[in-house]
Amino acid sequence: MLRQVTHTDRIVTLDYANGATARFHAVWLRDNALDPTTRAPGNGQRLITIGDIPAGLSIGAAALAGDALSVTFLPENKTVTFPADWLAAHAYDRDHDHPIGWTAPGITTWESAIAAPGGDWTAVHTNPAAKRDWLAAVAEFGFARLTGGPAEPGALLKVADLFGYVRETNYGRYFEVRTEVNPTNLAYTGLGLQAHTDNPYRDPVPTLQILYCLENSAEGGDSIVVDGFRAAERLRDANPEGFALLAGYPARFEYRGSDGVCLRARRPMIELSPDGQLVAIRFNNRSSAPFVDIPFDKMEAYYAAYRQLAEFIDDPAMGVAFKLEPGESFIVDNTRVLHARTGYSGAGSRWLQGCYADKDGLLSTLAAMEATAPEAAE
Amino acid sequence: MLRQVTHTDRIVTLDYANGATARFHAVWLRDNALDPTTRAPGNGQRLITIGDIPAGLSIGAAALAGDALSVTFLPENKTVTFPADWLAAHAYDRDHDHPIGWTAPGITTWESAIAAPGGDWTAVHTNPAAKRDWLAAVAEFGFARLTGGPAEPGALLKVADLFGYVRETNYGRYFEVRTEVNPTNLAYTGLGLQAHTDNPYRDPVPTLQILYCLENSAEGGDSIVVDGFRAAERLRDANPEGFALLAGYPARFEYRGSDGVCLRARRPMIELSPDGQLVAIRFNNRSSAPFVDIPFDKMEAYYAAYRQLAEFIDDPAMGVAFKLEPGESFIVDNTRVLHARTGYSGAGSRWLQGCYADKDGLLSTLAAMEATAPEAAE
Repeated sequence: MLRQVTHTDRIVTLDYANGATARFHAVWLRDNALDPTTRAPGNGQRLITIGDIPAGLSIGAAALAGDALSVTFLPENKTVTFPADWLAAHAYDRDHDHPIGWTAPGITTWESAIAAPGGDWTAVHTNPAAKRDWLAAVAEFGFARLTGGPAEPGALLKVADLFGYVRETNYGRYFEVRTEVNPTNLAYTGLGLQAHTDNPYRDPVPTLQILYCLENSAEGGDSIVVDGFRAAERLRDANPEGFALLAGYPARFEYRGSDGVCLRARRPMIELSPDGQLVAIRFNNRSSAPFVDIPFDKMEAYYAAYRQLAEFIDDPAMGVAFKLEPGESFIVDNTRVLHARTGYSGAGSRWLQGCYADKDGLLSTLAAMEATAPEAAE
Repeated sequence: MLRQVTHTDRIVTLDYANGATARFHAVWLRDNALDPTTRAPGNGQRLITIGDIPAGLSIGAAALAGDALSVTFLPENKTVTFPADWLAAHAYDRDHDHPIGWTAPGITTWESAIAAPGGDWTAVHTNPAAKRDWLAAVAEFGFARLTGGPAEPGALLKVADLFGYVRETNYGRYFEVRTEVNPTNLAYTGLGLQAHTDNPYRDPVPTLQILYCLENSAEGGDSIVVDGFRAAERLRDANPEGFALLAGYPARFEYRGSDGVCLRARRPMIELSPDGQLVAIRFNNRSSAPFVDIPFDKMEAYYAAYRQLAEFIDDPAMGVAFKLEPGESFIVDNTRVLHARTGYSGAGSRWLQGCYADKDGLLSTLAAMEATAPEAAE
């Protein structure tokens, strides 16, 4: 509840009934005005550019208008109102300090003791609340299982249809993960694969991956997922200088396993936002190219940090292991959660299908569901 | 030409005939060994993990072996060779200092005087050298025109087929850019659009966009492209503190113009690699959300930098303008080059189709073409 409004020509100060205060600058308020000549009714897009705001902008008046702020901007002599709750939700006059490697609100990092989140095929296809919970698990934990689906080739595309769009690549709209005679990728062998993120040699990396099981009677071939954000937190706490090296210099990744394909990326193993938020993990022993962007005097410390990060990733206390049955699948946030498999061989068969998709579609679908049924999201 | 090799237990030092030297660490050499038990013959993927390298690794011997380096690692007692030219290409014992906002090798920034790069539809579909030159222009300049194509709906997908894969989104595999009665996006009106990158509210953003003209008899509706990297360089040179603010704090972007869609991103307007390389520009007046991640005391300077960046972007000395004819299209690197259009109205019609794709496919196709016909790429 707004109690009082004061202003200078450049700044409006709001006093709330609970004793809190929040200041807003004239240019910020003008740029974010909610009136229909600033924001298009209907699609909500901004109709003005920063250049449309007069350089000599000032605040001519600011006053309470019910539980809203009314501001008159000069020289336009334009008056607009901002609801108090909108201002509270967009306040920036606050502490912006974060510990390095902080995670976004809504992210929960985990180790092996987590109860693996999952959903049921029929439920997520028929019950919006079940679908929303399954999507919310991917947003919060970076992975979720899905059980009870059909053991049919191509069924993984129906998983992507639940929330968004497949990212087609040189591997196809989807790809077959099974032993091949002349594998273009070590994934297409019976070898165990260390926990990794997929396609770090691609920029942008696919931000989601779906792995769907059609056959899995082979000995071995278990799936393991590991929270790369948690591994990064452990590295940060144990070796902050090493964390800073992996975040502070680009690694290199490369894939040239198929004719006509030569994919290369130059990105750090630990990607941070400019204000230190964990944004992405890239980790893949198979496709790491020679690292050539780290100064000579820091290379040994960089490698020591890489080794230590790998130890956290390989630590059995970190991973959640399960064996996919036909019709089961899992989805991972490929910017965060690593996946591994144990080796397999001998009798029986193992056949998975995989595809990529992107997080923007998943998070958009989730946000739209939560916006239309917010009470159910409590 | 290698002249001499010396070593300690941790470091190999190479002396070249031309007087240059390069040092390599034991762990780096071991990790990047090229032998068939370290790298899989065929697909080239690494077969070992960092944890497979003994923590007590040391160099037992290092010697010239023709124009190659032979190294014996202990305690494995494993000897591998590295060609001299491979070592020279991957040397990291060099100066790693860069000016802030440096651009990757092969990038050329430009202003309006550039001769707009382009290709001919028939040539790029039939002549590999023409296709390679067209792809190389996109890599170097961030945009290229394509003329002489069919004025057929869906033809833009054949442009994407030249190098990679469409990124499907909530806008479809492709979308119609023409005036609509109830536009879900201001692009679907006759309004002029300030130069912008598309979909900054998406994470990852689509890294390529194709805009293909089917009809353009309306008055106005010209296309303009602007090099965002050049605009960032101009800001850096004119106002380094302002550049650091736009690179140092995340902006926010949002789109909620359609039912069931709620896309949000928290990324900086100027994205740098950890070592200061220009990686991406995000700039879009229509979909900028309130910026709430900049400290109060820096908000006015942040806005001043935003205004100054916009002035460079809007500067007529920066943009390349052209009017698309039916059957003509252009492609932009959406992480770098902004596109604008002038308003249109009145008699005639304007109908474009647009789609998104990703740079990894384009750069991979280009690299593979250059690898198979390197002499032609001179």
